[in-house]
Amino acid sequence: MSILKGAAVIGQSGGPTSVINASAYGCIKTALENENITKVYGMCNGIKGLLNDKLMIMDEEDPAELALMRTTPSSALGSCRYKLKDPDLEPADYERILEIFKKYNIRYFFYNGGNDSMDTCNKVSKFMLKNGYECRVMGIPKTIDNDLTGTDHCPGYASAAKYIATSLMEIYHDARVYDTGMITVVEIMGRNAGWLTAAASLACAKGQGPDLIYCPENDFDIYEFMAKVKKIYAENGKCIVAVSEGIHDKNGKYISEYGNDLSNAVDGFGHAQLGGLASFLAHEIKNATGAKVRGIELSLLQRCAAHCASLTDINESFNAGKTAVEKAIEGVTDKMVGFTRTYVDGKYVCKYDLFDLTIVANTEKKIPADWFNASKDGMNEKFVEYALPLIQGETDLPKEDGLPKFVKLKKVIAK
Amino acid sequence: MSILKGAAVIGQSGGPTSVINASAYGCIKTALENENITKVYGMCNGIKGLLNDKLMIMDEEDPAELALMRTTPSSALGSCRYKLKDPDLEPADYERILEIFKKYNIRYFFYNGGNDSMDTCNKVSKFMLKNGYECRVMGIPKTIDNDLTGTDHCPGYASAAKYIATSLMEIYHDARVYDTGMITVVEIMGRNAGWLTAAASLACAKGQGPDLIYCPENDFDIYEFMAKVKKIYAENGKCIVAVSEGIHDKNGKYISEYGNDLSNAVDGFGHAQLGGLASFLAHEIKNATGAKVRGIELSLLQRCAAHCASLTDINESFNAGKTAVEKAIEGVTDKMVGFTRTYVDGKYVCKYDLFDLTIVANTEKKIPADWFNASKDGMNEKFVEYALPLIQGETDLPKEDGLPKFVKLKKVIAK
Repeated sequence: MSILKGAAVIGQSGGPTSVINASAYGCIKTALENENITKVYGMCNGIKGLLNDKLMIMDEEDPAELALMRTTPSSALGSCRYKLKDPDLEPADYERILEIFKKYNIRYFFYNGGNDSMDTCNKVSKFMLKNGYECRVMGIPKTIDNDLTGTDHCPGYASAAKYIATSLMEIYHDARVYDTGMITVVEIMGRNAGWLTAAASLACAKGQGPDLIYCPENDFDIYEFMAKVKKIYAENGKCIVAVSEGIHDKNGKYISEYGNDLSNAVDGFGHAQLGGLASFLAHEIKNATGAKVRGIELSLLQRCAAHCASLTDINESFNAGKTAVEKAIEGVTDKMVGFTRTYVDGKYVCKYDLFDLTIVANTEKKIPADWFNASKDGMNEKFVEYALPLIQGETDLPKEDGLPKFVKLKKVIAK
Repeated sequence: MSILKGAAVIGQSGGPTSVINASAYGCIKTALENENITKVYGMCNGIKGLLNDKLMIMDEEDPAELALMRTTPSSALGSCRYKLKDPDLEPADYERILEIFKKYNIRYFFYNGGNDSMDTCNKVSKFMLKNGYECRVMGIPKTIDNDLTGTDHCPGYASAAKYIATSLMEIYHDARVYDTGMITVVEIMGRNAGWLTAAASLACAKGQGPDLIYCPENDFDIYEFMAKVKKIYAENGKCIVAVSEGIHDKNGKYISEYGNDLSNAVDGFGHAQLGGLASFLAHEIKNATGAKVRGIELSLLQRCAAHCASLTDINESFNAGKTAVEKAIEGVTDKMVGFTRTYVDGKYVCKYDLFDLTIVANTEKKIPADWFNASKDGMNEKFVEYALPLIQGETDLPKEDGLPKFVKLKKVIAK
């Protein structure tokens, strides 16, 4: 273990989750307590804050207030969607980063985000190595999409999954309150991978879930879909469907585009409309069945519903941030902290491991084909076995006046 | 106190809430434990179940399972939307009810619902009195809309309000994660009264709420609205708006109809569209500002999110059902149980009172005019003082595998 003394900087990137702040807090708290780390900076809005020399001094925050980060959704430091260029072709950003590193004697770089963030880590790491600036770079994953390679699952996924399964159970009860017919279509996030939508099947495992679940891993045929909905509705008078926003036909065309692209309208499935996939499908089903139909989009709520976060997710996310600092102190660099699933006496135990940044940055993990049911309109027990341990435990989110008490940082900017 | 021995029947009516089952459970449990009540029946789907002689025997349910009703959303007995006719003109339904009452020796009638349910209670009560059938009739209120007269507030409102305020706080954090512009429009239930939408102001009281709140109590001017959104967006780069589904212009035309009524299109505000008010307003704002805009409809989630219910609401709802039975046993009939607000040592205390069914059935309570701010685009402290005590305390909803454990009744049907 070679000792490296200096400041640390942490940034957050990409879309919000309920627990990305838990990871950042795990990182910040561990860094603040470490004797080799002289100061801890937070990037204002990710790498953009670093490039603009807008760093907040985390040492200035009140520790009790800072601890509220653990259960506050979205990115407390601020996020960005900024993709660094190829350092060989456009080195300006990297030179600027090096300049800032030198200015604050930054020797530890932690970046908390999805695929693009791991790419950022990788590029920064390579550039510093090439320029002989000693610096340890660690990626801390997050994404509700659960599509990062290597790690068994991603921080943030389980809380979104818990919210989705819980909401679907509640919708199940709501949707069958009358003895009259009702069809409900619930649209869930996930452009290329169906992990979030598949979480609706956890409600099915409780006998209180949707009848049909469609993920982007399988081609979607709207005629076949309509026939199934009609059949279920005819038999039960109720039908609940969960669809991934990214479902597409066999030509790769998004079903959500059927509605707003009149020129490409497929046999009457074209309509000028403002709503999303759920309202499009609801409209089509209403036309085809005459039933009362409701389209529901879980929208932002599924990624920021910290009040329904999984305690397992919160703890694992915190530990991912903590492990990143501990490993960096030990001398590790150019890695992402991830999760390996183990079972001890048949009980799920999460192990914290290191993964190669390059692999993570360039590949996208989808649901294995054999986790779907035979008719590709639902999940089988393999998915449930995978997801159920992740959603265990309830958040200990502090409350004030019956409402969440979320963190309010002072954000003292470094001169 | 005149002793009346016989069976009791309870029914649920109207749309779901998170706590209507808490009221029903308060009623059923108290009735099961009372020595004057010989048997407790539940109507399958409200008054329709009574008319169709479809009654479930609540005595047959496992007490531990039955207790789960307290934290299960929607109507466990099943609901209906059936309005009884005028008994003087069309007495058939009432004669049928009397027949069923005689068949099962039903002497206690409890009906759990909104305005229409209180009307049902009132009519049944009058008919039985006129026909000399001794029977005690009690209304147990519920409605997320909070629009029943007499009672300070309605069972179900506070849980919806808590969910709305919590979700708005979470959306507030989500919507400002990037340093780029963003406008968010959140559509909340409430056709004629703005109680639910006003609950968004509880998030404002925590400094984490919407910038603008519009309720149906005030006329909505889309031009004035657009000007305000533009101004806030120009100043802050962010703007969050909460709108009631029932907002309307000074001619009484619903703003939600602007979008789908091309023939009545007002200066370009007409569009063929399938989405609701939120997506219509989001589309208009996007056109006017060029900003990134997101429309979110809280939809069914706001009325069935039992996982975020207010413990105050659960307990008060339970007590409303319990009080209905206790008062009926004491000889009271033809009344609704409601809430009177008192303060003991400055602390909110709910008192259970009796209200006249006729008044409740025929009037609709709106938000007092002086609870809005001067510009009618938000609430003032009077609303916050009113609503805040109601959302206190967290649900003790039992969990199983990290998901809610909701009631599953056996529903043994009486022969």
